[in-house]
Amino acid sequence: MYLAMNRFKVLKDKKEAFEAMWMERDSDLHNNPGFIEFRLLKGPEHEDHQLYSSHTFWEKEEDFVIWTKSESFRNAHRNAGKKSERTVMGHPQFEGFSTIQMIDKAGNKAA
Amino acid sequence: MYLAMNRFKVLKDKKEAFEAMWMERDSDLHNNPGFIEFRLLKGPEHEDHQLYSSHTFWEKEEDFVIWTKSESFRNAHRNAGKKSERTVMGHPQFEGFSTIQMIDKAGNKAA
Repeated sequence: MYLAMNRFKVLKDKKEAFEAMWMERDSDLHNNPGFIEFRLLKGPEHEDHQLYSSHTFWEKEEDFVIWTKSESFRNAHRNAGKKSERTVMGHPQFEGFSTIQMIDKAGNKAA
Repeated sequence: MYLAMNRFKVLKDKKEAFEAMWMERDSDLHNNPGFIEFRLLKGPEHEDHQLYSSHTFWEKEEDFVIWTKSESFRNAHRNAGKKSERTVMGHPQFEGFSTIQMIDKAGNKAA
């Protein structure tokens, strides 16, 4: 499992606009090979911003890389820059993660 | 869904020791009400450290808070401080996240 994560520092008076932008978008992520799940998460509040994070889970890193070169990706990001510059401080910070260990509800471990 | 996340800056020559510490530990997380899943993730490499992140998913924040006051939590952290000061730069950084939106494999959206 590969996790593609972005961290967004959202201006405090733009939280509603930022959330609305995500809620209202059309997403075809699920049509891409290897896509598992997407989550938009709201994190801690800081003095000058509210942290949000988008987590997209893929079977493997390669699936993510293929998506970044696809029309699906270009469509998803066509208006994102314009819209997010009004709500987000600076650029989102990207981090990719690979899974070292998983423990499920039943206590089963997997690497 | 609530995500309890810790970020660990691991010394580059301690990566194996850090991973082994997690792989070898006994975990009874799955015996706690509201526990959904645990993941240890390996992130980007930086000049002076390797980023790791632990993600624990709970039904709701309250389940996490109850766990932090439990014997299960004390047991899990009894030796963690000692062991991790030899592998991690500074303290782990904790961040809690609530879910704003989820999209699953079938394209179904949920809040």
